[in-house]
Amino acid sequence: MILRFRLDATEEQVEELVQRLEGAGCRTRRSPEPGRAIVALLDRPPAALAAELARHPLVEEVVAPKGDLRLVHRSFHEQPTVVRAGGLEIGGPGVVVIAGPCSVEGRDFMDEVAGHCARAGAHMLRGGAYKPRTSPYSFQGFGVEGLAQLKDAGERHGLPVVSEIMDGAHLPAFLDHDVDCLQIGARNMQNFTLLKAVAAAGRPVLLKRGLAGTVEEWLYSAEYLCAFGCPQVILCERGIRTYEPATRNTLDLTILPLLRELTHLPVIVDPAHAVGVARFIPPLARAAVAAGADGITVEVHPRPEEARSDGPQALLPGELAGLVADLRVLAAVGGRGLAD
Amino acid sequence: MILRFRLDATEEQVEELVQRLEGAGCRTRRSPEPGRAIVALLDRPPAALAAELARHPLVEEVVAPKGDLRLVHRSFHEQPTVVRAGGLEIGGPGVVVIAGPCSVEGRDFMDEVAGHCARAGAHMLRGGAYKPRTSPYSFQGFGVEGLAQLKDAGERHGLPVVSEIMDGAHLPAFLDHDVDCLQIGARNMQNFTLLKAVAAAGRPVLLKRGLAGTVEEWLYSAEYLCAFGCPQVILCERGIRTYEPATRNTLDLTILPLLRELTHLPVIVDPAHAVGVARFIPPLARAAVAAGADGITVEVHPRPEEARSDGPQALLPGELAGLVADLRVLAAVGGRGLAD
Amino acid sequence: MILRFRLDATEEQVEELVQRLEGAGCRTRRSPEPGRAIVALLDRPPAALAAELARHPLVEEVVAPKGDLRLVHRSFHEQPTVVRAGGLEIGGPGVVVIAGPCSVEGRDFMDEVAGHCARAGAHMLRGGAYKPRTSPYSFQGFGVEGLAQLKDAGERHGLPVVSEIMDGAHLPAFLDHDVDCLQIGARNMQNFTLLKAVAAAGRPVLLKRGLAGTVEEWLYSAEYLCAFGCPQVILCERGIRTYEPATRNTLDLTILPLLRELTHLPVIVDPAHAVGVARFIPPLARAAVAAGADGITVEVHPRPEEARSDGPQALLPGELAGLVADLRVLAAVGGRGLAD
Amino acid sequence: MILRFRLDATEEQVEELVQRLEGAGCRTRRSPEPGRAIVALLDRPPAALAAELARHPLVEEVVAPKGDLRLVHRSFHEQPTVVRAGGLEIGGPGVVVIAGPCSVEGRDFMDEVAGHCARAGAHMLRGGAYKPRTSPYSFQGFGVEGLAQLKDAGERHGLPVVSEIMDGAHLPAFLDHDVDCLQIGARNMQNFTLLKAVAAAGRPVLLKRGLAGTVEEWLYSAEYLCAFGCPQVILCERGIRTYEPATRNTLDLTILPLLRELTHLPVIVDPAHAVGVARFIPPLARAAVAAGADGITVEVHPRPEEARSDGPQALLPGELAGLVADLRVLAAVGGRGLAD
Repeated sequence: MILRFRLDATEEQVEELVQRLEGAGCRTRRSPEPGRAIVALLDRPPAALAAELARHPLVEEVVAPKGDLRLVHRSFHEQPTVVRAGGLEIGGPGVVVIAGPCSVEGRDFMDEVAGHCARAGAHMLRGGAYKPRTSPYSFQGFGVEGLAQLKDAGERHGLPVVSEIMDGAHLPAFLDHDVDCLQIGARNMQNFTLLKAVAAAGRPVLLKRGLAGTVEEWLYSAEYLCAFGCPQVILCERGIRTYEPATRNTLDLTILPLLRELTHLPVIVDPAHAVGVARFIPPLARAAVAAGADGITVEVHPRPEEARSDGPQALLPGELAGLVADLRVLAAVGGRGLAD
Repeated sequence: MILRFRLDATEEQVEELVQRLEGAGCRTRRSPEPGRAIVALLDRPPAALAAELARHPLVEEVVAPKGDLRLVHRSFHEQPTVVRAGGLEIGGPGVVVIAGPCSVEGRDFMDEVAGHCARAGAHMLRGGAYKPRTSPYSFQGFGVEGLAQLKDAGERHGLPVVSEIMDGAHLPAFLDHDVDCLQIGARNMQNFTLLKAVAAAGRPVLLKRGLAGTVEEWLYSAEYLCAFGCPQVILCERGIRTYEPATRNTLDLTILPLLRELTHLPVIVDPAHAVGVARFIPPLARAAVAAGADGITVEVHPRPEEARSDGPQALLPGELAGLVADLRVLAAVGGRGLAD
Repeated sequence: MILRFRLDATEEQVEELVQRLEGAGCRTRRSPEPGRAIVALLDRPPAALAAELARHPLVEEVVAPKGDLRLVHRSFHEQPTVVRAGGLEIGGPGVVVIAGPCSVEGRDFMDEVAGHCARAGAHMLRGGAYKPRTSPYSFQGFGVEGLAQLKDAGERHGLPVVSEIMDGAHLPAFLDHDVDCLQIGARNMQNFTLLKAVAAAGRPVLLKRGLAGTVEEWLYSAEYLCAFGCPQVILCERGIRTYEPATRNTLDLTILPLLRELTHLPVIVDPAHAVGVARFIPPLARAAVAAGADGITVEVHPRPEEARSDGPQALLPGELAGLVADLRVLAAVGGRGLAD
Repeated sequence: MILRFRLDATEEQVEELVQRLEGAGCRTRRSPEPGRAIVALLDRPPAALAAELARHPLVEEVVAPKGDLRLVHRSFHEQPTVVRAGGLEIGGPGVVVIAGPCSVEGRDFMDEVAGHCARAGAHMLRGGAYKPRTSPYSFQGFGVEGLAQLKDAGERHGLPVVSEIMDGAHLPAFLDHDVDCLQIGARNMQNFTLLKAVAAAGRPVLLKRGLAGTVEEWLYSAEYLCAFGCPQVILCERGIRTYEPATRNTLDLTILPLLRELTHLPVIVDPAHAVGVARFIPPLARAAVAAGADGITVEVHPRPEEARSDGPQALLPGELAGLVADLRVLAAVGGRGLAD
């Protein structure tokens, strides 16, 4: 249940009602926005109190979302959430481009790629230090050393960084190296242990949709993050598993306009993991922005044939630059622009 | 197997080789394009002849597509196919917009809707006279009378028309009323009896992808049309069946860049049947064009709440006009434009 | 809406109410069962009449199924439907085994296979004369000559026959050759034109589930058959299309107990098209009977490597005999037995 | 690569070759079976050594599985693996029944349910102490106290116990309470961090298939467990996510005969999470055993309407007893029996 107060409700009045709710055993959360007071009730209030809320003079509207979604629910915010990661705004007027290699592969390499990304106009640097691999015998990433290389390259080229975290025990390393945004991978979308651990760190989180995650499950996983302390969540669509064998996955842009109504969280799109073929990525990245995405994330490698992982889906630096130029025009068509 | 002749091969030389192939029991088809001679072999040639073809001085390239695809295969044409339906070009430089009601619902109504579509900038008028309905008790369309109303409205407003055909026995009615393009619906994608019957009519065909049709199966159904006499095929993606219950279907734009490499046929997108909610359609139509579609088809109704079928997914005339304006800009970004 | 009359309602009383309903523009259908009168209303009755029915002294229960399902709905019958095809009962106490080649491949061949099937204990002979093939260049069956060969072989070995029909125009050939049961293939589950045409013939129909047909759509297709004149429908589960590439399809036995509650129609299972590998078929056929199927259909070929189609999923005659023996025991465990 | 030695190869000869491989940087694993020596190579051997192995006089067969599967590959064992958990054999001649409540809900409750399970003939007691829940606000289990209650109840009634582990940090609690088998839940099938942690404990692991896990991914997750120290893995099919909304999931029995060829690990089936409706579970449990499963796992609750989670899919104790009786007969049909 979400209480949207009247604009003229005073802070004292709101606080008093919140205290009564908490006193009745009903935990509450206040929306962080300035302006209208909005309060989510995590527990069901006693019947008498619920009835009172429904006709309370201070409450303009009581929203009762289906199921348990509260903190990510669209009505918990007046405005869409703008996530701030290392100076970059995601979900604001500017569309963002996240780019970088699949895996961090060395210090010089990261410096080279970060330079390409920055010059091409990307806004954030990605790179995997801990890699979830289907096979136990595949390259599993350089670990903490990879985080250092990623962050150094980002700093040298003025780009905040994002990297996937697979284990709560690695959190100190991510914080020590000041990774600006923590990525939860598709296979961990419902790893509730990890969600809780990462939420507690208070960093922005990029939450990928599971390989076969429903919109509802995905939003619940975002609700876990919010409920356990992290309101700075970016949703990332990355293709879903379907019956179609002609492409690796099916990029689900159909849900983009729907998500705008269900949640206030920003949504970006990763076209690369859906198609798995570099030359098919730019058209899909353009489609994502045309459908209203707040940004895209792509993989870049100057020599894809040498990549330690996912080379076939890496753009060349020049392809990235061309794509960014296209997105700049497309974003303008949609009344936005690229982020600064 | 597809033989791509050298540009300097003379017509006599090509014809002679074709005769030898036919004489050896191997049926052939000539690509309709001017310029380079391209010949598809429908049957497997005898081994000795096959070996000879592989090093034949007149043959620049022998393409052996995986499986049986030949006439729809990209290498059977130098240029993408441009389908011509009632004066409209589909698959040419201009992106096309097909619009109209789900069902034809009366003479005055069709006149009204066709006027809206024409003024909004649509290029072709759609409308169902024979409706495939899941339930035997649902409205099944006005039949032949609907075809007459559709065609009259199209003529009055200068729009060629497209309508779904469900039964080969109805072909005379479609031809009598000069329906410019025959639509094969999703549920009939693998109705091979219908494909053969419709192909024989020699009209352009709009072939919808099946509810769970693979790209391969879909192209084979297009191959049926070509093999039985209809080379003027437009593919139409309309959303596939996935595990996700939040949207009616999942619009599969992922396959668009892939289709460009697999086939020379034009591809349009029907976003409405995928999402089923009118306000979600424009973002997805924009995405389709941004991903490279040759056009879109949408449903329009001036009073959706009164529609005999699919009202919730019908755009208002004003929404259609706004969408066409957006697509004009988007198409320009992609180096194209809207059709005249 | 389905009216279940009291057991003591007289035929005159029932008839009188039916006449009033018909007089009010509400078409009705009487359940063919003896005993309790059950009447399905195909149209919605006027409000006053509906209200009267709800408390009518002759009506014991008014069932209002969700959606439009009526004639196939469980409550339209007291007892499960027993389909009778050429002397064989399907859906009765005995579990049935349908067997035969994928394609009819010649007179001697059919005689040989039919002999194997009869000796192995199968109850009905299957064989395709018209073959739905994904590619236009694949073998499309021997047509009417195949029907003759199938029927002759069946008669020689005392087996009724079933064969797929793809075109309403072929109905006279099926009836001329007295094909005992008409099969609607998976790709035609929602070929409403074919459903209507086949229904009118009044023969038993074996209706395969579509490649991605939902239970609801499948039952609606059965409702088409019933509504257009064919109450003798056998449902056939044959595997659905899922994301899993390790098997051709996924046999959906999960729906078997559900179907028992939704419909009175018999349900058989075709494990071969789901797995596509002969040696995996017997365990799945056993599973189908253990889950409560009324029968199975399998393909048999004495020399699978020579089969014109689907050889890899054909059982050898000896394997069929072993499977029938297993099913006899399994059916007994479930309190049934094999059909005579 | 898997080396299957000749039966007359001596231990010294095998050891010498293994030492050479290890010396060349190629890690190896010895199959734990007595009898024939079988060695898996985790790394690719140098080309010269690989060539030598191919024609080595001591090596009867070199198996090169597609991809990276080695330790779970069928050819790594002569015999199927029999997992031993608390005295119970899983994968041996006897089919096993695992039963218990979804969640551990209290000491007396567990004693009651365990008594029911033991008397009904179940072989192992299940119960969730840590519950993966889609919503952060749902009941998350009693944690370590739940483990104590589960184990006590199991001991009192002579049943080994299995419970889901969601966090490597909880391992000491599972070991302290001597939980006989650790369950990895469907949502954690590709939680590689958890797989590695759990593998190190050396306990038997019941690995559920992911909600949309492919057979290949599932086997790779089992390979993780084996590679990191746990060869005692039980695979558990629990229904996959498909387009069909009529049932919660689709139980995939189609893969059972396939798994027998791909791996030596035992496979059990959880029908309850697929159908989600108690009365549909027994037919599917019977189907699973008829298809060759090594066992089933079901949920039991004496008062399902009071269950803290998943009440609608819990069998009553009497229903469990009836099911066990059915399975006893079915297992006998398949030449097996129930475990003692």
